[in-house]
Formats: sequence, structure tokens, C-alpha cells
Amino acid sequence: MFSSPAPPTGLLEKLFQYIDLHQDEFVQTLKEWVAVESDSVQPVAHLRQEIFRMMDMAADKLQRLGASVDSVDMGSQQLPDGQTLPVPPIILAELGNDPKKPTICFYGHLDVQPAHKEDGWLWDPYTLTEVDGKLYGRGATDNKGPVLAWINAVSTFRALEQDLPVNVKFVIEGTEEAGSVGLEDVVRREKDRFFSSVDHIVISDNLWISRQKPALTYGTRGNSYFTVEVKGRDQDFHSGTFGGILHEPMADLVALLGSLVNSSGHILVPGIYDSVAPLTEEERKLYETIDLDLREYQNSTQVEKFLFDTKEEVLMHLWRYPSLSIHGIEGAFDGPGTKTVIPGRVTGKFSIRLVPHMNLSVVEKQVTQHLEDVFSKRNSPNQMAVSMVLGMRPWIANINDTQYMAARRAVKTVFGTEPDMIRDGSTIPVARIFQDVIQKSVMMLPLGAVDDGEHSQNEKINRWNYIEGSKLFAAFFLEMAKMHS
Amino acid sequence: MFSSPAPPTGLLEKLFQYIDLHQDEFVQTLKEWVAVESDSVQPVAHLRQEIFRMMDMAADKLQRLGASVDSVDMGSQQLPDGQTLPVPPIILAELGNDPKKPTICFYGHLDVQPAHKEDGWLWDPYTLTEVDGKLYGRGATDNKGPVLAWINAVSTFRALEQDLPVNVKFVIEGTEEAGSVGLEDVVRREKDRFFSSVDHIVISDNLWISRQKPALTYGTRGNSYFTVEVKGRDQDFHSGTFGGILHEPMADLVALLGSLVNSSGHILVPGIYDSVAPLTEEERKLYETIDLDLREYQNSTQVEKFLFDTKEEVLMHLWRYPSLSIHGIEGAFDGPGTKTVIPGRVTGKFSIRLVPHMNLSVVEKQVTQHLEDVFSKRNSPNQMAVSMVLGMRPWIANINDTQYMAARRAVKTVFGTEPDMIRDGSTIPVARIFQDVIQKSVMMLPLGAVDDGEHSQNEKINRWNYIEGSKLFAAFFLEMAKMHS
Repeated sequence: MFSSPAPPTGLLEKLFQYIDLHQDEFVQTLKEWVAVESDSVQPVAHLRQEIFRMMDMAADKLQRLGASVDSVDMGSQQLPDGQTLPVPPIILAELGNDPKKPTICFYGHLDVQPAHKEDGWLWDPYTLTEVDGKLYGRGATDNKGPVLAWINAVSTFRALEQDLPVNVKFVIEGTEEAGSVGLEDVVRREKDRFFSSVDHIVISDNLWISRQKPALTYGTRGNSYFTVEVKGRDQDFHSGTFGGILHEPMADLVALLGSLVNSSGHILVPGIYDSVAPLTEEERKLYETIDLDLREYQNSTQVEKFLFDTKEEVLMHLWRYPSLSIHGIEGAFDGPGTKTVIPGRVTGKFSIRLVPHMNLSVVEKQVTQHLEDVFSKRNSPNQMAVSMVLGMRPWIANINDTQYMAARRAVKTVFGTEPDMIRDGSTIPVARIFQDVIQKSVMMLPLGAVDDGEHSQNEKINRWNYIEGSKLFAAFFLEMAKMHS
Repeated sequence: MFSSPAPPTGLLEKLFQYIDLHQDEFVQTLKEWVAVESDSVQPVAHLRQEIFRMMDMAADKLQRLGASVDSVDMGSQQLPDGQTLPVPPIILAELGNDPKKPTICFYGHLDVQPAHKEDGWLWDPYTLTEVDGKLYGRGATDNKGPVLAWINAVSTFRALEQDLPVNVKFVIEGTEEAGSVGLEDVVRREKDRFFSSVDHIVISDNLWISRQKPALTYGTRGNSYFTVEVKGRDQDFHSGTFGGILHEPMADLVALLGSLVNSSGHILVPGIYDSVAPLTEEERKLYETIDLDLREYQNSTQVEKFLFDTKEEVLMHLWRYPSLSIHGIEGAFDGPGTKTVIPGRVTGKFSIRLVPHMNLSVVEKQVTQHLEDVFSKRNSPNQMAVSMVLGMRPWIANINDTQYMAARRAVKTVFGTEPDMIRDGSTIPVARIFQDVIQKSVMMLPLGAVDDGEHSQNEKINRWNYIEGSKLFAAFFLEMAKMHS
């Protein structure tokens, strides 16, 4: 699909050769790591022990690379059901502290989503199984493969007895799939110690938008999650004995929810688009070259028809424009069957995905004001309460920052193509945590292909992505050093 | 509150005196019946056995009155969970078959709703407890008290060695609270045998609309229950990765549900009011004398404000005009918390309470057409499916029928007032079953006061209602005989 990359020369050639020659060893290590059922989602003591074992294996691996490793004790957590579970340590490791070199901090996680053969896996999810160049296994792409690719890159320099061109730090956690327990605290606490020398942060925990073409991710949307409660009384009513004489809370709520977004997906809250960053010509051009076949995307997601007809519009509405989704209603009749209830108190839930430069508290005011206006026109005696229960700001990086330039060059070197410059429509909290606390450039540098199926049955990483990804990181180190000098 | 009734004379006087003198015995029998935990709602074998015991006690009681009793074996039922439970017998009993007398069939049930002391009962729900003239206990008013009041009336004639002025039949079941398992089949099967001689059917399984003033019920609303499904795909979407580019099924559904009824409770489905029976002057007058303090009603039901300001409007909108209630949504996010899901397939549920002379299949067409019109304007690629999953016709009786006239006179004799002529906004399936199958006049003649709390904690029947109700039935027999001759 792409022009072949120019053959690497000198050190790069040696590094790539080494990685190619030792790829089976790299796959073997991934197999050993995938074999650990480090599931952080199911709150079960023996699974937590598996995460501890996984973290020990990683700490040991990093120590053998020569890194100094600090496994930060995270104590225990109490779950909503009262159960107490131990929290696996967060690994803070560092390799090199040459003040003349840039310091890159790599973030990854080694816990995984639950997986059981009976869920529809073709093979045991904890036995890495290679078929047609695909390495199937839970955690293969999310996130054990990318963590190992970074380690492979470092170890290749070591094996070839080459000076590592950058200082490397690692932050590796074991509860990302369960909400990154304690991570933000650790980052804040270590801000002026472990993180003081960090120049750049690299996260490799998302996917390309294509099966073949690499990508760099430079932004994520934020999210503001709203509840709107309409209350008549605490108890429900029977629709036979009250239907016809009540201002029914559900009628109010349905009208409120129906006032939020039109059938074209346009948000109807006045002023909500006011501070959305205008589209620059530079940004517009980024969308043109992105590898996305809209028809194939529609088919693969089983969507009859998107709201927009062009690749550019679809991507912009996923990444750089806000969206509003209605998630559901709490307190109404939600089961199967035919209950004739008039719910007494119902709570609608919706959220707005935020983009630069929307402001959380402005959005909160706009939404609240809008709902109050709609509600007051109904002359309903019910009580309405709007609440923004969750607010996460969007994240956007400067794609002209050093590490983005270095990564683009490294991609060009390894894959022979410019990367897709992409964003993510979801919120990825770690990106924001690092951005907000460390206040250094954050880059997301994914290795996996769009069809890797993270969180799904038959999760996989392609051998090609894993091995070329290891080369990519090695090339990235060299580019960073070049740009730094 | 009412003028004292004229003192009864002759036979009536003797009957009333007997009932007054033996009232403690009547209460004692009610106590014995309430002591049986004949809960048909909880699908538990030992509770089913209690219903069987209850039905045996009733059959025995009727036999000792001289009735011929047929306990119809109902076999067993399979529950949705696969469990099989025995179904208690339906009692068909008859006393007298004098062709010169009218034959009145009384329907009642002896099963009850679940009740546990810990639910908030002040006393053990299965120990009838008298406080300030109130007899508290599960089933006291629904429906053991009224069944016994009818039996008390019959047994008083027997005790005084008086000829029973009417032929009496009984239909007593044990699964009314669980959907009257098999009742309709039995009624159909016995249409030309047991029911062939029946002239009138009396049901005493509802309540007055007042604490003090008796009532006759001459109509119930029907119900048409709709589901409207909107499907994008079977799986849900993540609002981060799809929010902004989808025709979201929830947005479609909320718009559909929002098109059904306005903030004044007016149904917006075109044509829906076309066949509602016009209000006659005679009917309008019935509403004026009804004992209902709107403010007190609002307070007691914890409703801030009804849609209407007068007693007449409120009652008409509960009884003689249709209403539309939105019950909820299946398939959307309905739990606590903040799930950022775009539901892939959602089903809205609503129902329209039907009144004379609305037609089920016309309503089905009107609703379907309306929703299709609204949906087509949205240009959504989602699939919409409307279904009327349940249809029950309204029931209305001719209040100038013999038994209504007789009951009004009996009420006047016992209570010194004309009864409130009321309807019920809910559907009471047994009324319709008898009306449809037997095709004889059905009357609902309630004994309990509005505050009896059927189905609630601390259900009760007032001693006064129970004892005067027994007199009412005795007086009703005499009036029926008078009008028949």
C-alpha cells in the first residue's frame, strides 16, 4: 500500500536487523505476559494476585535492563459493596539520567479486561495463539504488546551495547481497566521528584484508525455528564387510577430530553457551539489524507448510515465538534413486560463530548439554563433538578511539538508513510492527568491496528505491528536525540 | 354526615338486628380467614398450599350454609422460570334454584397480596387487629371481608329461617392477585351450565371513592399497551467513539415519545378523541354529587397539583376520557451511575386508557400511523417497530338496569344516602370477562372505604363497613326480589 521505506543505514539498520532476528523471542515474552490473567475488572482476590505477579514480572524485566525500579505500594481499596481488595503497585522506573539527553516518560498498563473462552473466543484468551500473523490473546494489544514493544526497543540498544540516545522513564500501572486507582495521586506526589526531569510523555494505549496505516493521536474529547431529575413524588403511581390528571414526570422528562439535540445531531442548547475552536486550513488538511473507507467503516460497525457522507465530516464530528448522547432514564419502567406504572421520579442521563475550547462551567450553565427554560414553558408542578455529575476537559496537543515531529519522522522511516494525524472522540483520562499535572507535552503513539478488538473477544495484535512497533520506538529514540542536539 | 336512614321495618329490621347482635361472630370468622396467608403473588409452594386451605375453608363454610359446592380442579401452572405450581380450585357454588326468583352471581377472591410485618405493618398482617373500629389485616378489605359480608347476609336469612329471596351463585377464586389463572376458561366452559341461569353478576372487589359515602361502580377504562422499538443495531455503541455521527436510537425514541401527549395531558395522536362518548346531561349530573374533596385528595396522594381544578374535571379525566402514560424505556441505561453508552436498540413503552366507545383496532391504527408520520420526518436510517402488545376494552354498565336500581335503594335503606355513582380508571379484567362471556349485567358494589389501603401496608376494613356491608347485601337481596316480582 505504501512506498517501501528507504533502507535504514548505520545504527538504525543494526537495530532493525536485531529486532527482526529476535522477533520470536519478543513474541515469546508477550506470550508469557499474556498468560497472566491480570484482570482488574472482576473484583476477585485471586485475580488481584495475578496482577501483582504481572507487575513483579515487569519490574524484574526492567531491572534486568538496568533500570532502577520503584514499585510504589498502593495499599488497598474498598469497593462499593464493602469488599476490600489490594491495589497492585505502580511501577516508576528510570533508565539513564544524562542531562544532555531528552527524558521521555512512557506510560502503559498491564492489567486487562475480563476474558473467558465461553465468551466467544476461538482460543484460550490467556494462551497467545498465532494465526496468519495475528497474535490472539487478552491484553495482546491492550496494553501488554505496546509496553513490551517499548521495552524491546530499549533492550535492543542494550543488546547491541549501544548508548541509549534518550533517558527513559516508565510509569506502569495495574488498574487502568478499573479506573487507574491511585494513579493521579502518585503522579501529583511525584511531580517534583520522579517527573521533574521528564520532557515528554508517550502513551501507547490506543489504536490506529486503519488496518495498515500508522497514526499519531494529538487530542481527545472531554465529557460533561448530566442528570436531569423530574420528581412528582417519591412513589410511583398506577396509570389506571392516576392517568389523565397528573403532570406526569415522564412526559416532562421526555420533553426535556427531546429538546437537546435534533435529528441531524445538532445540539440545540443555545450558545453551546460558541467557543468551539474554528477549523483552520492546516487542520482541515490533516483530515484529507487519513486512511478511512467510510463505507467499510459503516459496514464493519453495522451502521446503516452515518449522519454525514464524507470521511472528513464524519471524523470532524467525532473529534473536533461536540456531540450529545442520551444514555437512558433511571427510575422509569425498564424491564421486559407491560407494567402500567406512572413513574413518580425519573432521572434522564445524557452527556456532551467536549472539544477545544469549550469550558466545563460554561457548558454546565448553558445546559442548565436551557433545561430550565424548556421546563418553565411546561407549567409543570413537578420539581426539576439538573446536575453536571462528571466533567472532563478535552485534551489537545501541539502537533508541531518536538516529539510529534520526531514520531512522524520515525513512522516515515519504519513504515514509509506519513502517519494519520488523528484524535480520539473519547476521553482518555491518563492523557489529561499527565498534561494537567506534569504540564509537559503528551503524545499518544499507538501501535495496534483498528481491528485489534481491544476489550472484545479475540483481541489480537498483528506480529507485524508488534515488531515494526518495536522498531518504531527505537527509531523514535534516535529522532528525539537528533532533534534535541 | 347523612340523614339517618328510616328505621327498617319487618323482616329487614330482624335481619339488621341479627347482624348487629352477631357482629363479633362475623368479625371472628374474618379473623380466621385473614389468619391464612393465602398469598398468590409469591410463587412459593407452601403459600400455594395455604390458598388451597383457604379455598377448603370457604367451600366448607358454603356447604354448611346449604350450598352445593363444586371445587373445580385447576391443575398446575408453569411459571416463566420453569417452576410448576399447583393452581387452587375455583369454587362454583349455588344456593337455591327457584325459577321465580332472580339469580345473582357473586364473584370474589380469597388470595391476597404479599405482606410482611417488616414492610411497615404496625401489627402482624395475618392477625386481624382491631383499633378504633378499624380491622387491620392482609385481605381484610381485598377481598376476604366483602366475600364474608355476602356470606353473612345469606347466613342471616338462614339463621332467621327466612326464605332467601334470590337464588345465589358464587364464583370464588384463589389467584386474582396473580392474574386469575384459568378463570376465563372456567367461565367460558360453564357458560351454558353453571352460568346459564345467572341474571346478574355482582363484584365487590373495589373501594368507595370516599371514607364515608357508599358507591356503585358502573364502568372501568380499558387499556391499550404499546411498545415502540427503535433499532440501530443490536449492540450498544460507545458515546466517545460514535457520538456525533449516528442517528442515535434514543434521540429518535425520545422524539417519538415526546410526540404523544402535551403538557396539558392532551393526547396528540390525530383522531384519538373522535369516538369518545359525548357527555350527556344525565352523566354530567352524576359527577356533581360525588363525595370528593379535591384538596384533600391532592394532599393524601402527595400530588402538588392536578391537571384540572375541579372535582368534576378530575373525575371525568380519570373515568370517561382517555389518558396516555409513558411508562419507560427498555434497553437504555437505567442503572445508577454514569455509563456513557449510546444504546443500540431501545423500546419505549406507553399505554392509552380507553373509554367508551373507543375501538381497540382503530386506536392501534391511529397510534401506529402517528408514530410512523413522526418517525418519517426524522429521516432516520434506524428501524422503527410499533406494536400494541395488550388490548383491553373499557367496560360500562347501564345504571338504569334492575340491579343498579335495587342496589341504590339498598344503599339508601342502610346508609340513608344515595351512593356515589362512580367508575374506575383502571381495567378490572373480571368485569369484562363476565360481561363478554355471560353477557349479563355486571355491577361492582364495593364495601370498603377509600382509605382501606388494599395492596398496601396496614390494609384494613372498618368494622362499620364490614357489618353495614353485610346488611347492604341482605337489603339488596330483598330489593332484587321486589323488583323481580
